[in-house]
Amino acid sequence: MPPGVACGVGGFLPSTMPNTHPSYVELSKLVREVSTLGSIASLLGWDQETYMPAGGVDARAEQQGLLAGIIHERKTQKKIGDLIAACEGEVGKSIETGSPEAANIREMRRDYDLATKLPTSLVQEWATTTSKASEEWKHAREKSDFKKFAPWLGKVMDLCKQKAACYGVPKGGEAYDALLNEYEPGITAVEIEQVFTPLRARLSDLIHRVAKSKAKVSTKILSAKVPAEAQHAFGQFVLGAMGFDMNAGRLDTTTHPFCSGIAPGDTRLTTRYRGEKFTDALYGTMHEMGHGLYEQGLPKKGPNAGTPLAGDISLGIHESQSRMWENFVGRSREFWSWALPHVRKHYGPHAKAFKSAKVEDLYRAVNTCTPSFIRVEADEGTYNLHVMIRFEIERALLSGSLSAKDVPGVWNAKYKEYLGLKVPDDRRGCLQDVHWSFGLVGYFPTYTLGNLYAAQLWETINKKIKDLPARISKGDFAALKKWLNTNIHAHGRRYRAAELCEKVTGKPLSADPLMRHLESKLGGVYGLASAR
Amino acid sequence: MPPGVACGVGGFLPSTMPNTHPSYVELSKLVREVSTLGSIASLLGWDQETYMPAGGVDARAEQQGLLAGIIHERKTQKKIGDLIAACEGEVGKSIETGSPEAANIREMRRDYDLATKLPTSLVQEWATTTSKASEEWKHAREKSDFKKFAPWLGKVMDLCKQKAACYGVPKGGEAYDALLNEYEPGITAVEIEQVFTPLRARLSDLIHRVAKSKAKVSTKILSAKVPAEAQHAFGQFVLGAMGFDMNAGRLDTTTHPFCSGIAPGDTRLTTRYRGEKFTDALYGTMHEMGHGLYEQGLPKKGPNAGTPLAGDISLGIHESQSRMWENFVGRSREFWSWALPHVRKHYGPHAKAFKSAKVEDLYRAVNTCTPSFIRVEADEGTYNLHVMIRFEIERALLSGSLSAKDVPGVWNAKYKEYLGLKVPDDRRGCLQDVHWSFGLVGYFPTYTLGNLYAAQLWETINKKIKDLPARISKGDFAALKKWLNTNIHAHGRRYRAAELCEKVTGKPLSADPLMRHLESKLGGVYGLASAR
Repeated sequence: MPPGVACGVGGFLPSTMPNTHPSYVELSKLVREVSTLGSIASLLGWDQETYMPAGGVDARAEQQGLLAGIIHERKTQKKIGDLIAACEGEVGKSIETGSPEAANIREMRRDYDLATKLPTSLVQEWATTTSKASEEWKHAREKSDFKKFAPWLGKVMDLCKQKAACYGVPKGGEAYDALLNEYEPGITAVEIEQVFTPLRARLSDLIHRVAKSKAKVSTKILSAKVPAEAQHAFGQFVLGAMGFDMNAGRLDTTTHPFCSGIAPGDTRLTTRYRGEKFTDALYGTMHEMGHGLYEQGLPKKGPNAGTPLAGDISLGIHESQSRMWENFVGRSREFWSWALPHVRKHYGPHAKAFKSAKVEDLYRAVNTCTPSFIRVEADEGTYNLHVMIRFEIERALLSGSLSAKDVPGVWNAKYKEYLGLKVPDDRRGCLQDVHWSFGLVGYFPTYTLGNLYAAQLWETINKKIKDLPARISKGDFAALKKWLNTNIHAHGRRYRAAELCEKVTGKPLSADPLMRHLESKLGGVYGLASAR
Repeated sequence: MPPGVACGVGGFLPSTMPNTHPSYVELSKLVREVSTLGSIASLLGWDQETYMPAGGVDARAEQQGLLAGIIHERKTQKKIGDLIAACEGEVGKSIETGSPEAANIREMRRDYDLATKLPTSLVQEWATTTSKASEEWKHAREKSDFKKFAPWLGKVMDLCKQKAACYGVPKGGEAYDALLNEYEPGITAVEIEQVFTPLRARLSDLIHRVAKSKAKVSTKILSAKVPAEAQHAFGQFVLGAMGFDMNAGRLDTTTHPFCSGIAPGDTRLTTRYRGEKFTDALYGTMHEMGHGLYEQGLPKKGPNAGTPLAGDISLGIHESQSRMWENFVGRSREFWSWALPHVRKHYGPHAKAFKSAKVEDLYRAVNTCTPSFIRVEADEGTYNLHVMIRFEIERALLSGSLSAKDVPGVWNAKYKEYLGLKVPDDRRGCLQDVHWSFGLVGYFPTYTLGNLYAAQLWETINKKIKDLPARISKGDFAALKKWLNTNIHAHGRRYRAAELCEKVTGKPLSADPLMRHLESKLGGVYGLASAR
């Protein structure tokens, strides 16, 4: 199959012919070269996690360093800046306002500003400080000793404040908004807060009601031992069934699962296999596949190849795709009524437990809800509370209303309030995530934005494809994939996340769909009063 | 294990401290960057052959094209030329004559000249013409229709002549010498002829005597069916036993086996498995491992990292390493007396045939000698005649004493004379190899130079390590590997091939060692009069 056809939706079809203004054409070419160099760096990264022999690590660092230098040099070249300015002058003239090209210029400006607005001295201090801070974080976490990390967290936050100042804080906004722009362009802290606040209240209430429920949910089936080979074969079967194009992608094994959309026609997923919890790899694979389907569906071929328009919108939208396949499809009754016979076939003699298991057993087992300390191990219901705690704390740190040294106290109080948990130590508390040591501030909320977008899209999709549950229970995922291809993926980065959300769902982002989803599901599983 | 230790001999130890002349230091840095970019291109190439999904091919071509442009730009930058000239002026002054640094400057000059002496117009015409010629060759070979290919061979040869003229033909030399410099620096066509002429005569005589022999050599054991997994596990076992560092390398499966010395600490081998001829993969793996041990043993770390001094000498010397492990070790009685019990263990239930097989059965089966039409399928005895025929023909084409259209006649006459074969058609005759269509002229002789160097080194090694056969039969390959590490690999590109040969073996390259080896072995297998 030719790569164009293989790649999901087979290219972007703008409503007009691509603009041929010489500045726009030349700009696109330069930007595309930077993107191609970036795709090489992606491959180097993928290889390092998958097949590179251990002895190659120094050489790989040298390759990545040299390449990063070349990319930075090209990305920040004055010519690109001049061409962007020239193109901006053409919007409303030879370039139609609101056209794909106008959107592309808006995003090129954003990328260029992100790459050029930080002075070299700050970039260097950032690199040195975050490198040391992440080392210190490792030691501090091992010893569960926050005091050791506190001064480094303070330094990193100072640098984040400087960074935000260089990017420029929008009028009436706050420093946090400038940092959000790196991960979730266009959204503000206040906008996030407006959705998170009702979400937190309703979610916290739901969790507390679940905790009081006397319903028993057995997870015994999840600890059936399944060899990695059988899990891998089943994972590949699921990818095929759901429409991930294996002619334009792969599935490999790594310590930490990821999806790398390396280049057009080349999207690589990874997962990991635990002998005793097969759903780890299964949901890990479906999660990464959600990212992968987005990558395969982006308009990476054609006139906008290698430009921002061919890229993803934001971390939140990316995450919405992974969460949709993992949670909305993968944790549904319909999924299991399709999957269970295939599980029996694939896991075969290794998994006697599945012979007598019922769809309902699986459905309930994968939908338990139990407050826990560690975010990355949290279930669908409690997960977002972990995220919101981090959002509130990092926003306060950045605004200066909270000092680094006071983080553990606030952290533990919030875990008590939202999740009803008494955090036993900082290792299982505010030292658990690497993000802050790397200076990733504004990143955490995108996880929950992903869940919110997924829920809101899911409601719309189910209105458009009325028999979707029936289709899923027959293993027919084509209509869902096609809808995502057409309504989300094919637009690339033409719209900002909020714009796309309204365009597609008819409403601004809200906590309601996610809460309806969770209240309905957990209400059913735990027999709560308001259950459907 | 730290990469430095992992990488064979652990770095180059020059007799003097590295030169610190500013021009030399700056030159080394620039050259090293080009080398690092080259290592990235190698990884892209490896990935394309191993794990890249089919859909990634267009993007990969774009990545490689862009990278090749950047490499060429940097490799040919005027600053490098100026610095080389400055350093050349320092040899005999601040840079000692005959020192590693002087050798490095000599090789940097060679690389720079190769990269800069061809005008852009010729490079472009070369790319276009060879691309078309290789397509035409494919079609012509399929239809066994040399007439279709003849005009293209003529065009390629014209370009080769122009190329040689640009490189500059050495005084008293011929155009062919200028092309040889790309693959086997320092050698001339006359020098090759002086070794090939006696080799051809003695070899042709030997082959004719073998053909007349009434001895029967059974190859039945070679067709035992062995599953790919068992072959792969055994291949990995052999690599480990022979000292290939798997912490600094890998073994994968590809259509065509190769070795890619991607970077320090990262040397990757590939092989292919045929269910019905296990020696294909076994000798393929040992062949590539010979290349791989050379790569792992080169002085890639330390002050000369990324400079020519850290590289291999020539295709001939590289091939000598692969042929030594494949033929001199791998086709010996001693190898099989060590390997057979391990074969029985690894191939286990799949290979009943090996239970009753004797060492002598294997030894004889892998040392048959039968004239055949196809070079890449030829045995150790007849192989070099295939090469010499190509050398003679391409030299004549380049000098103009032979026209493209007359190639089949000459080819067929030589196959009759040297190998006693009547070539049935051009597909199995002068259309079998891709080399000429790509303009690779001067490449073929390096295959036989590799065999010659291997034989001459082997005699010396056996004088230095008197109990080598006994060691091999015990599976002790350490002394051999160490000798190669110290006497060949660790020098990097300090000496030219002929120089290294004399330095190590005490004699200039000669046909005698290879002929002694083949006459002794084939004499024994076929019971010839002069057998030991």
